[in-house]
Amino acid sequence: MARFMDVHHGMQGITSDELMAAHRADLAIEKEEGVHFERAWADPESGIVYCLSEAPSAEAVQRIHERTGHKADEIHPVPLSV
Amino acid sequence: MARFMDVHHGMQGITSDELMAAHRADLAIEKEEGVHFERAWADPESGIVYCLSEAPSAEAVQRIHERTGHKADEIHPVPLSV
Repeated sequence: MARFMDVHHGMQGITSDELMAAHRADLAIEKEEGVHFERAWADPESGIVYCLSEAPSAEAVQRIHERTGHKADEIHPVPLSV
Repeated sequence: MARFMDVHHGMQGITSDELMAAHRADLAIEKEEGVHFERAWADPESGIVYCLSEAPSAEAVQRIHERTGHKADEIHPVPLSV
Protein backbone atom coordinates (compact mmCIF):
# COMPACT_ATOMS: atom_id res chain seq x y z
CA MET A 1 0.00 0.00 0.00
CA ALA A 2 1.13 3.52 -0.75
CA ARG A 3 -0.25 6.96 -0.11
CA PHE A 4 -1.53 9.18 -2.93
CA MET A 5 -2.70 12.75 -3.31
CA ASP A 6 -5.02 13.23 -6.25
CA VAL A 7 -6.19 16.55 -7.63
CA HIS A 8 -9.40 17.50 -9.43
CA HIS A 9 -9.78 20.76 -11.34
CA GLY A 10 -12.92 22.46 -12.63
CA MET A 11 -15.00 21.90 -9.48
CA GLN A 12 -15.96 25.57 -9.12
CA GLY A 13 -18.98 26.04 -6.90
CA ILE A 14 -18.75 22.64 -5.21
CA THR A 15 -20.72 22.61 -1.94
CA SER A 16 -19.98 20.86 1.32
CA ASP A 17 -22.85 18.44 0.64
CA GLU A 18 -21.54 17.65 -2.84
CA LEU A 19 -18.02 17.02 -1.50
CA MET A 20 -19.44 14.70 1.16
CA ALA A 21 -21.61 12.87 -1.39
CA ALA A 22 -18.64 12.36 -3.72
CA HIS A 23 -16.48 11.12 -0.84
CA ARG A 24 -19.20 8.71 0.34
CA ALA A 25 -19.63 7.36 -3.19
CA ASP A 26 -15.89 6.62 -3.26
CA LEU A 27 -16.00 5.01 0.20
CA ALA A 28 -18.90 2.79 -0.84
CA ILE A 29 -16.85 0.95 -3.49
CA GLU A 30 -13.21 1.63 -2.55
CA LYS A 31 -12.64 -1.83 -1.05
CA GLU A 32 -13.18 -3.43 -4.45
CA GLU A 33 -9.81 -1.94 -5.48
CA GLY A 34 -8.15 -2.09 -2.06
CA VAL A 35 -8.24 1.71 -1.81
CA HIS A 36 -9.07 3.87 1.19
CA PHE A 37 -9.90 7.54 0.75
CA GLU A 38 -8.86 9.24 3.98
CA ARG A 39 -9.53 12.94 3.53
CA ALA A 40 -10.56 15.47 0.91
CA TRP A 41 -10.29 19.26 0.77
CA ALA A 42 -11.97 21.62 -1.67
CA ASP A 43 -11.75 25.22 -2.80
CA PRO A 44 -15.09 26.10 -4.46
CA GLU A 45 -13.63 29.34 -5.80
CA SER A 46 -10.68 27.93 -7.78
CA GLY A 47 -12.47 24.61 -8.30
CA ILE A 48 -9.63 22.48 -6.93
CA VAL A 49 -10.26 19.33 -4.89
CA TYR A 50 -7.48 17.34 -3.19
CA CYS A 51 -8.04 13.74 -2.07
CA LEU A 52 -5.66 11.80 0.18
CA SER A 53 -5.78 8.03 -0.10
CA GLU A 54 -4.01 4.79 0.62
CA ALA A 55 -4.02 2.42 -2.30
CA PRO A 56 -2.09 -0.31 -4.09
CA SER A 57 -1.55 1.96 -7.12
CA ALA A 58 -2.52 5.26 -8.74
CA GLU A 59 -4.52 3.26 -11.27
CA ALA A 60 -6.62 1.73 -8.48
CA VAL A 61 -7.38 5.24 -7.15
CA GLN A 62 -8.39 6.36 -10.62
CA ARG A 63 -10.63 3.35 -11.24
CA ILE A 64 -12.68 4.20 -8.12
CA HIS A 65 -12.87 7.90 -9.02
CA GLU A 66 -13.92 7.06 -12.59
CA ARG A 67 -16.67 4.70 -11.47
CA THR A 68 -18.09 7.37 -9.15
CA GLY A 69 -18.04 9.97 -11.91
CA HIS A 70 -15.18 12.20 -10.88
CA LYS A 71 -11.96 11.20 -12.63
CA ALA A 72 -8.85 12.78 -11.13
CA ASP A 73 -6.76 15.16 -13.25
CA GLU A 74 -3.53 14.34 -11.38
CA ILE A 75 -2.56 11.50 -9.05
CA HIS A 76 0.76 11.75 -7.22
CA PRO A 77 2.28 9.15 -4.91
CA VAL A 78 3.28 10.91 -1.67
CA PRO A 79 5.58 8.41 0.02
CA LEU A 80 6.87 11.04 2.46
CA SER A 81 4.73 12.75 5.07
CA VAL A 82 5.00 14.59 8.35
CA MET B 1 -8.81 31.20 10.84
CA ALA B 2 -9.10 29.32 7.59
CA ARG B 3 -7.55 26.20 6.17
CA PHE B 4 -5.07 26.28 3.28
CA MET B 5 -3.35 23.77 1.04
CA ASP B 6 -0.10 25.07 -0.39
CA VAL B 7 1.94 23.42 -3.10
CA HIS B 8 5.67 23.49 -3.79
CA HIS B 9 7.16 22.35 -7.09
CA GLY B 10 10.77 21.54 -7.98
CA MET B 11 11.50 19.54 -4.83
CA GLN B 12 12.78 16.50 -6.72
CA GLY B 13 14.88 14.24 -4.52
CA ILE B 14 13.59 15.59 -1.21
CA THR B 15 14.27 13.13 1.62
CA SER B 16 12.19 12.31 4.66
CA ASP B 17 14.75 14.12 6.85
CA GLU B 18 14.62 17.22 4.65
CA LEU B 19 10.82 17.27 4.72
CA MET B 20 10.87 16.97 8.51
CA ALA B 21 13.52 19.69 8.84
CA ALA B 22 11.50 22.05 6.63
CA HIS B 23 8.32 21.34 8.59
CA ARG B 24 10.09 21.90 11.91
CA ALA B 25 11.52 25.20 10.67
CA ASP B 26 7.97 26.32 9.83
CA LEU B 27 6.64 25.13 13.20
CA ALA B 28 9.38 27.04 15.03
CA ILE B 29 8.15 30.45 13.81
CA GLU B 30 4.54 29.84 12.70
CA LYS B 31 3.02 31.42 15.80
CA GLU B 32 4.47 34.80 14.84
CA GLU B 33 1.92 34.89 12.00
CA GLY B 34 -0.84 32.94 13.76
CA VAL B 35 -0.30 30.00 11.38
CA HIS B 36 -0.28 26.29 12.19
CA PHE B 37 1.16 23.80 9.72
CA GLU B 38 -0.69 20.53 10.32
CA ARG B 39 0.61 18.07 7.77
CA ALA B 40 2.85 17.84 4.72
CA TRP B 41 3.18 15.22 1.97
CA ALA B 42 5.93 14.91 -0.60
CA ASP B 43 6.64 13.09 -3.84
CA PRO B 44 10.43 13.09 -4.35
CA GLU B 45 10.02 11.85 -7.92
CA SER B 46 7.77 14.61 -9.29
CA GLY B 47 9.14 17.13 -6.76
CA ILE B 48 5.72 18.15 -5.44
CA VAL B 49 5.15 18.97 -1.77
CA TYR B 50 1.70 19.67 -0.29
CA CYS B 51 1.30 21.46 3.05
CA LEU B 52 -1.96 21.70 4.99
CA SER B 53 -2.28 24.61 7.40
CA GLU B 54 -4.65 26.72 9.42
CA ALA B 55 -3.93 30.41 9.12
CA PRO B 56 -5.49 33.87 9.11
CA SER B 57 -4.61 34.33 5.41
CA ALA B 58 -2.67 32.88 2.48
CA GLU B 59 -0.22 35.76 2.87
CA ALA B 60 0.53 34.68 6.46
CA VAL B 61 1.27 31.14 5.23
CA GLN B 62 3.58 32.51 2.57
CA ARG B 63 5.45 34.80 4.98
CA ILE B 64 6.37 31.79 7.15
CA HIS B 65 7.38 29.67 4.15
CA GLU B 66 9.47 32.54 2.75
CA ARG B 67 11.31 33.11 6.03
CA THR B 68 12.18 29.41 6.25
CA GLY B 69 13.48 29.39 2.68
CA HIS B 70 10.77 27.47 0.84
CA LYS B 71 8.28 29.85 -0.75
CA ALA B 72 5.09 28.12 -1.93
CA ASP B 73 4.23 28.12 -5.65
CA GLU B 74 0.48 27.93 -5.00
CA ILE B 75 -1.64 28.56 -1.92
CA HIS B 76 -5.33 27.62 -2.04
CA PRO B 77 -7.91 28.17 0.66
CA VAL B 78 -9.70 24.86 1.25
CA PRO B 79 -12.80 25.86 3.22
CA LEU B 80 -14.46 22.49 2.59
CA SER B 81 -13.14 19.19 3.90
CA VAL B 82 -14.28 15.69 4.71
